[in-house]
Amino acid sequence: MKPGKLITIEGGEGVGKTTCLRYLGAEIQRQGMDLWQTREPGGTALGEALRHIALGHEYAGMTEKAELLLMFAARAEHIHRKILPALQAGQWVLCDRFIDATYAYQGGGRGLPQDRIQWLEKWVQAGLTPDLTLLMDMPVKQGLKRARQRSVPDRVESESISFFEQVRQAYLARAAQEPERIKVIDASCELDDVEAQVMVVLGEFFARHT
Amino acid sequence: MKPGKLITIEGGEGVGKTTCLRYLGAEIQRQGMDLWQTREPGGTALGEALRHIALGHEYAGMTEKAELLLMFAARAEHIHRKILPALQAGQWVLCDRFIDATYAYQGGGRGLPQDRIQWLEKWVQAGLTPDLTLLMDMPVKQGLKRARQRSVPDRVESESISFFEQVRQAYLARAAQEPERIKVIDASCELDDVEAQVMVVLGEFFARHT
Repeated sequence: MKPGKLITIEGGEGVGKTTCLRYLGAEIQRQGMDLWQTREPGGTALGEALRHIALGHEYAGMTEKAELLLMFAARAEHIHRKILPALQAGQWVLCDRFIDATYAYQGGGRGLPQDRIQWLEKWVQAGLTPDLTLLMDMPVKQGLKRARQRSVPDRVESESISFFEQVRQAYLARAAQEPERIKVIDASCELDDVEAQVMVVLGEFFARHT
Repeated sequence: MKPGKLITIEGGEGVGKTTCLRYLGAEIQRQGMDLWQTREPGGTALGEALRHIALGHEYAGMTEKAELLLMFAARAEHIHRKILPALQAGQWVLCDRFIDATYAYQGGGRGLPQDRIQWLEKWVQAGLTPDLTLLMDMPVKQGLKRARQRSVPDRVESESISFFEQVRQAYLARAAQEPERIKVIDASCELDDVEAQVMVVLGEFFARHT
């Protein structure tokens, strides 16, 4: 059995991840792959409970360290109970946010040191890295405007503009460090153009890996 | 303002921590100290929510890494929002289980490596160590018999005898490493004798620190 691939979608608020996940998932299936779609924090019963805690307003003002540890607790469960078994069974796993979100939100946004995140990543993920990451990028104000029209903001979505600027810069810094894995998609343009960019990236990925 | 002291009580299931906490707390107050009593996992709204998750049966089979990270997430919140401010305000903090429980349960019981726990301790606690720890010790079977008469066992209390033997041995190993801080109380004898031992230890602590 050929192991599956882990593809992650990343980006700030309102960048159009949900729409992108839809056509990306459809295209992966059209290529004949067995697809499992999931999200972080979440993807398991424990992970969803922790998502509720981490994003809810009930624990506003949670210390940064607690937030980071919750994210990795949820990820540990997700990887060991779901993602690794799925990949080993040959499934392609499409995940809405993953490790790069931790560097962007808890690192860039909250200011937690990179080396702490790296240590936790190394221990919790034990070598698991996405095979491909699509970073949906657009100016912060444009994304927030869209996100806030859509729904009531959660605890993290309620942060300031400067928080999201730091998130965006941390995401772009990751992409600059790992250009082979992280592909930046200009999500500020028309939906058709966004989809076209995503399809080019996915096409190249398929050409290399199938 | 003279900072307060952090006193922790540790031990396996059914060793009599609750009774001990009662007279220990009463004695600390009788000595004129402002006492704040708390527990782990717990002690904050987030910590109690995580306690419910970590000890409940709903997430049976949780991966060991996730369990360890949840314990430290709860502890990060507890320390930074409650324990440090209390100590700085001169309060004496009496905590039902703390870092030694992590070495005993997640280290000894679950088999997670000590060096991982040490790294997390160093980062999350940033130098905070209990000033005094009372380790209530008794044979595992005696404790479990008492615990199981008392209440329906939680997820951790439902573990096997060998799990609890490993927990006990890990606790005793900690005490052997840090004899100045961790005082072993023989909790297998009559209640009066247990109380007498605790009072001697507390008396010596007061003599040194007040």
